[in-house]
Amino acid sequence: MLCTFHYKNMRDVSIIGVGQTPVGEHWDKSLRELGYDALSAAMRDAKLERIDSLYVGNMLSGELTGQEHLGAIIADFAGLRGIEAMKIEAACGSGAAALRVGLMAVASGMADFVACMGVEKMTDPPPDVVTSALAMAADAEYEGLHGLTFVSINALLMRRYMHEHGYKKEDFAPFAITAHENAVHNPNAMFHMKITPKQFAEAKPVADPINLLDSSPIADGSACVILAPTSIAREFSDNPIRVRACAMATDSVAVHSRRDPLYLEGAAISAQKAYAAAGVGPADMDLFELHDAFTIMSALSLEAAGFAPRGRGVGLALDGEIGLKGRVPITTMGGLKARGHPVGATGMYQISEVALQLRGEAGANQIPNARLGMAQNIGGSGASVVTTILERM
Amino acid sequence: MLCTFHYKNMRDVSIIGVGQTPVGEHWDKSLRELGYDALSAAMRDAKLERIDSLYVGNMLSGELTGQEHLGAIIADFAGLRGIEAMKIEAACGSGAAALRVGLMAVASGMADFVACMGVEKMTDPPPDVVTSALAMAADAEYEGLHGLTFVSINALLMRRYMHEHGYKKEDFAPFAITAHENAVHNPNAMFHMKITPKQFAEAKPVADPINLLDSSPIADGSACVILAPTSIAREFSDNPIRVRACAMATDSVAVHSRRDPLYLEGAAISAQKAYAAAGVGPADMDLFELHDAFTIMSALSLEAAGFAPRGRGVGLALDGEIGLKGRVPITTMGGLKARGHPVGATGMYQISEVALQLRGEAGANQIPNARLGMAQNIGGSGASVVTTILERM
Repeated sequence: MLCTFHYKNMRDVSIIGVGQTPVGEHWDKSLRELGYDALSAAMRDAKLERIDSLYVGNMLSGELTGQEHLGAIIADFAGLRGIEAMKIEAACGSGAAALRVGLMAVASGMADFVACMGVEKMTDPPPDVVTSALAMAADAEYEGLHGLTFVSINALLMRRYMHEHGYKKEDFAPFAITAHENAVHNPNAMFHMKITPKQFAEAKPVADPINLLDSSPIADGSACVILAPTSIAREFSDNPIRVRACAMATDSVAVHSRRDPLYLEGAAISAQKAYAAAGVGPADMDLFELHDAFTIMSALSLEAAGFAPRGRGVGLALDGEIGLKGRVPITTMGGLKARGHPVGATGMYQISEVALQLRGEAGANQIPNARLGMAQNIGGSGASVVTTILERM
Repeated sequence: MLCTFHYKNMRDVSIIGVGQTPVGEHWDKSLRELGYDALSAAMRDAKLERIDSLYVGNMLSGELTGQEHLGAIIADFAGLRGIEAMKIEAACGSGAAALRVGLMAVASGMADFVACMGVEKMTDPPPDVVTSALAMAADAEYEGLHGLTFVSINALLMRRYMHEHGYKKEDFAPFAITAHENAVHNPNAMFHMKITPKQFAEAKPVADPINLLDSSPIADGSACVILAPTSIAREFSDNPIRVRACAMATDSVAVHSRRDPLYLEGAAISAQKAYAAAGVGPADMDLFELHDAFTIMSALSLEAAGFAPRGRGVGLALDGEIGLKGRVPITTMGGLKARGHPVGATGMYQISEVALQLRGEAGANQIPNARLGMAQNIGGSGASVVTTILERM
């Protein structure tokens, strides 16, 4: 294939504003209000009163709140009636997919100021409704029909991983413990309590071997970034953050169709495309916000993105390398596990958190002198993956 | 606002392949099969075996078939595992919104060959489920909560239009009659029968004053176009069609919030942006594929896009100007009314039909020597509007 990813005249793009709502159970706010809160915070951060376009990453607004057409709904509610707006969906990868679209809008010159948002509201309906809705990230005809839920698919992957690579269930504990530790100082995180290895070992089973503390919580939330051409970014931000790459790739949705269920090929392709576009590699990253929907996903993401050899993702965590002072700091603001996982919003939380780290605004969780950071947002069990590399200028 | 829509280095983009499935009740095909049929037809048309990205316009896959994550589902089913793929949603404007994203991908240089698809499967569930699902194109909290369905909102608009501008119900007949006449020779249309003024007048009421023959039918279908840089388009197509503009704009979703419910401001802004980008006006168009979900929408779209003064959209039809030999040929292949309206796919059918007209492949419905054509795809009652201008090279 011809592929001019490095097309010479593409505009360089930067993040000039970041906004987040706290992740949690927002029973007092509608979906549009959540979206507005993050959007207006990001626009204030960028000192903007108007934008050209709004790309809304969301997975379940139709199923859980009876509202599609979210782009126009939020644009109007935010006082931006008239602008271009649409919803972007790629299961739990929707948030970062919205960044991908916004990047193309600014890089092409079609727009100068765009808002890329992730928003999700999951805590109003009963849990069984949410579980059914989340199963739509899997293959409805080949997985859902057989009664597989999303967590049970991950449980099958975790069991196989333990079998193949000789890990015990307790070996996954560092992922959850690190995430909870880092969430304590993140004002937008859902959980502000640490957990112990004992708590992890004794947590209630969800779908064996996955227990409650392997699992990220469903939640409500919204996060948003504003993109602009790098050439004018400093007029709007003292700390613009360059989008060095944002690359997306897919894999089969049904896990049984994969060449190797323990290798996230979509995640690997997406990371390789991002590395190639940015001219960097995993060793250059000062932090990596990965998609720890379940602890097994952390291990598989670390391996697919090149931070650990096959079967060594869990080992990296056991070696103490994933903490704030480790070789590969992950989930630095709490991750999906402890910041919370409002599915279509998660990708944008990850990107916002990397941007804040690179701006030096991560508070007690700051990675000293962070210059290059990466986020990997995963839809389904690795079927839609967006890898984003950001850089401090 | 700065807005460099005419950014000098943006790549020029053309359509090098077109594929459609017949619109109808495809009870023997799943959503992914429908999508595959149109995608593979478009790729064959462009003589391509691989593409870089797939943008799937779809509104209701989650609600009606229990499947989100449609980008990866269809990419994999089409043998394209690994490529970038995502779903784009803007209610009934989803199809053309997918073209907008694909245009940005190629214009920016992020991709060379992208497929923009619209797909929808609506005829499996019972009609009340579909009616409820379609209401999600309206405002769930401010319209749906009061029991307004999508057709009843259009009925309110039509009643008000008749009152304001002094038309009778029968005056809307030419829109439906013309659409059915043109569908007769479109092999992909759902209905191949003409209708008479008497049939129109005596059709069963749906939501007064809208009757069955004012209304487009729900349907299953998929259409797809392949985009590539114009600079290499002739290597893949004898008849590449330039995308001169594709512009999107929004309005409030709730009709009661509009400054003037009979003026589709989103449609007007979208058309004006497209005219400005292409440097042309309505008088230059050889045909106009408008969004005739209901006859009232045809009138409002003609007015908002500048083809008729306020209150004269219906008059233009009564004057006989909307037929294949009229001053403003519309719904040249049957329109939503008679080709059928698989909601998220419709925008891509419109664009495909304009492209075929400009390629001189519209058969018995060919507009002689058509050079410039426009499609306007509308989500909600005018809340998300995408206007696309195509040109024969």
